[in-house]
Amino acid sequence: MTSGPLELPRRSAKPRSTGITHVLDRGLSLRQIDDLVEVCGDSVDIVKLGWGTALATGNLQPKLDRLRSHGITAVLGGTLTELAIRQGRVDGLVAWLHELGLEHVEVSDGTISLDPEEKRGLIARLAKEFTVLSEVGSKDAEEIMAPYRWVEQIEAELAAGAWKVIAEARETGTAGIYRPDGEVRKGLIDEIAHAIDPAKLLFEAPRKDQQVFFLRRFGPDVNLGNIAPDEVLSLETLRLGLRSDTMELGG
Amino acid sequence: MTSGPLELPRRSAKPRSTGITHVLDRGLSLRQIDDLVEVCGDSVDIVKLGWGTALATGNLQPKLDRLRSHGITAVLGGTLTELAIRQGRVDGLVAWLHELGLEHVEVSDGTISLDPEEKRGLIARLAKEFTVLSEVGSKDAEEIMAPYRWVEQIEAELAAGAWKVIAEARETGTAGIYRPDGEVRKGLIDEIAHAIDPAKLLFEAPRKDQQVFFLRRFGPDVNLGNIAPDEVLSLETLRLGLRSDTMELGG
Amino acid sequence: MTSGPLELPRRSAKPRSTGITHVLDRGLSLRQIDDLVEVCGDSVDIVKLGWGTALATGNLQPKLDRLRSHGITAVLGGTLTELAIRQGRVDGLVAWLHELGLEHVEVSDGTISLDPEEKRGLIARLAKEFTVLSEVGSKDAEEIMAPYRWVEQIEAELAAGAWKVIAEARETGTAGIYRPDGEVRKGLIDEIAHAIDPAKLLFEAPRKDQQVFFLRRFGPDVNLGNIAPDEVLSLETLRLGLRSDTMELGG
Repeated sequence: MTSGPLELPRRSAKPRSTGITHVLDRGLSLRQIDDLVEVCGDSVDIVKLGWGTALATGNLQPKLDRLRSHGITAVLGGTLTELAIRQGRVDGLVAWLHELGLEHVEVSDGTISLDPEEKRGLIARLAKEFTVLSEVGSKDAEEIMAPYRWVEQIEAELAAGAWKVIAEARETGTAGIYRPDGEVRKGLIDEIAHAIDPAKLLFEAPRKDQQVFFLRRFGPDVNLGNIAPDEVLSLETLRLGLRSDTMELGG
Repeated sequence: MTSGPLELPRRSAKPRSTGITHVLDRGLSLRQIDDLVEVCGDSVDIVKLGWGTALATGNLQPKLDRLRSHGITAVLGGTLTELAIRQGRVDGLVAWLHELGLEHVEVSDGTISLDPEEKRGLIARLAKEFTVLSEVGSKDAEEIMAPYRWVEQIEAELAAGAWKVIAEARETGTAGIYRPDGEVRKGLIDEIAHAIDPAKLLFEAPRKDQQVFFLRRFGPDVNLGNIAPDEVLSLETLRLGLRSDTMELGG
Repeated sequence: MTSGPLELPRRSAKPRSTGITHVLDRGLSLRQIDDLVEVCGDSVDIVKLGWGTALATGNLQPKLDRLRSHGITAVLGGTLTELAIRQGRVDGLVAWLHELGLEHVEVSDGTISLDPEEKRGLIARLAKEFTVLSEVGSKDAEEIMAPYRWVEQIEAELAAGAWKVIAEARETGTAGIYRPDGEVRKGLIDEIAHAIDPAKLLFEAPRKDQQVFFLRRFGPDVNLGNIAPDEVLSLETLRLGLRSDTMELGG
C-alpha cells in the first residue's frame, strides 16, 4: 500500500484479531502465493486449503512452508476433519497436522451429522493443541436452522474453546447465512449479532454484495471469510472506502 | 498428492484411457502451465487450446513444447478444423498440425453445418495420421437433437475411427448435453449410456454440479472435459470423495 | 500470433487509435503482467488499475514501470478522481499522477454527483497535462439516463478535450449502457452511434455476449473496455473471427 494523495481510514495491522481476511485456496501454486503477497500480503491473514484439497495437491508441504514464511496462517478445510470423524481417524489427523507444522484446525459439521455434544467435545480436545476455528451452518442450502439454534451453537462452541466461529456460506455464498440466491439472511445476522460479539465471528462472504453488507453492518474491521485470492485486493479497497460500493466508509 | 491420514479410493494413473480430465486452455502462459503441473499435473491428461486461440496466442510453439515436456497431450480447438473446412484448407491444416508436432486432432461441427457422411470421411482420413477426438452436438443452445440421432452419430464416428467422442457443452455448460440453464439432459445421457460404453465418451462438464452428476452416474473414472485449469484440483477432489458433494465416493 | 493455415482479417497494430482493448486490472502481480504480455501483449492497449486499487496494492510503482516497459498505457480508476474531488484534493491527485509518471487520467462521475459544467471544466483543465478518458454513465443500475442526455454529455466532454469517452458498464456489465441483466440497451447505442463517431467511444463490455454485440455492430476494430485480463485472448479471437460467435467476421 502506497501513501497517496487521499485521506484513508486506518486499518488494523497483522497479526490482527479483528478485520481478518480469510482466503479460500482452491489450489494455489507457490508462485501464485508469492504474487498474492506482492499485491496484498498485508491483507491476507488466513489461507484455508479448501475442503480436501490438501490431500490432492502436489505441493502441500512447500505451500504450507511458503505461507508460514510470509506470516500467513494456514488451516486445512473442515471437510477433512469431517472425513476423519467419519472414518474414525481423528487421532491420525491430529498426528498428521502436527507433522505438517499446522497450529490451526477447523471443526465443522457442514456435511456429516455430528451430535452437538460430540462436536463441542472435539473442539475442547483440539483446543488444547491447536487454535480452533469451528464452523456453524450446513452446506445444504435446503437445511434451514432457526436463529436461536445458531446462537446456541455459536455460544457453546466458543465456550468449548473455539477461537472464532465461522458462519457457513459455501464457496458460492448460497447456503448457511445466505439464501440460495446469495441474499443475506438479515434477520438471522441481527439475532446472532444481538447475542454475540462480532469480533468472535468470521462471516463467509465470497460475493462482493455480501462483503458490502457486512462492512456496512459491522464496519471495516469485520472478519470475512471464503474470500477468493483474486478478490482480496478488492475487499481491501472496500474496507478502505476506495470502491464505489462503500465510498461512505472512506475519508 | 500426499499420503495422508485418510483412506482414499484408488485413481488410475497417467497415461490413462478412462478417468481422463480434459482441460480447456483459454490462454495459459508457460508459467501458468508449470503452476498447474505443480498443483495437479497427474490429473491433467489433455489440454485443449480452446477454439481458435492457437492462431492468436503469442506463445504457441513454446506452449506445445512445454505441455509435451510435462507428459500432457495437446489438441487444438475443433473450431479451427471447422474454419479450415469452411475455407477449403484442410490439407493446409493437416500440414500445420504436423509442423507443430501435434498427434491429436478434434473434428467437430458445433458451428458449421457438416454433412454426417463428410464428417465421418474426414474422421476416417485424419485417423490414419492422428488420434481423433470427434465432437457431437451443436454450440447453438436452441438446436435440440433427438437422442437416437446422438447415438447414431456417436456410433458412426467411433466406427469411422474416432478415439473418443466428446459430448458438446460449450465453455459455459449451457448447450449440447445441457439445457440452456446448465441442467443435464438426463434422459439423453441415459439413452447414450444405454447404447455406448462411457469409456469411449468424454463429457464436457465445466460446472461443478455437472461434474458431480457424471461422477455419481458413472463413477470416479468418468472422462470429463472443458474443465477450467483452476477447476482441475477441485475435480480431482470430487473424484476422490474429498469434497462435500461426493463424499459418498470416498473411503 | 502465429502465421497459420487459415486466412484471417487484418488487425490494427499498436499503438492504435481504434480497435483498442482496455483491460481492467483488479490486482495483477508483475509476473501476471508478463504472462499477459507473453500470451497477448499486442492486444493490450490500456490497463486500468480498477477503482481505488492503486492506493491499496503493494506493487504500484513497479507495476506502472512494468506496463510502460511493455508499451502498455496505464491509467488509474476514475473512482480515485471522484474521491479526490469529494475530498477537495484534485491538486494533490494531479501532483501524484505526475510523480507516478502517468500520462493518462480518467474523469468519471459514476458514484458522486458532479455538475456537468464542473466535469467539463475539470476535463479541460486536465487535458492540458494529460490524455483524458472521460466516462459517462452511472454505476447505479437504477439510474437511467435518457439517450439525448448521453449524446449531449459525450459531445460536450469530447469538446472539452477528452481523447475518448468511456460508456459505463461496471465490472459486471450490468449498468450504464446495459440493463441490470447485462442486455445491451440497443436503442441507446443506436442514438449514440447516430450522433458520434464510434472511434471516439470506448464501450465497456466485460461479457462475451456484449463484446459480440459491439463487434457485430461496429466491426472488429471497435474500442472495448473493462476486459478482464484472462478474457483478452478470447476477445482477440472474437475480433479475428476465430470463435464460434463471430466466425462470420473471419476470412
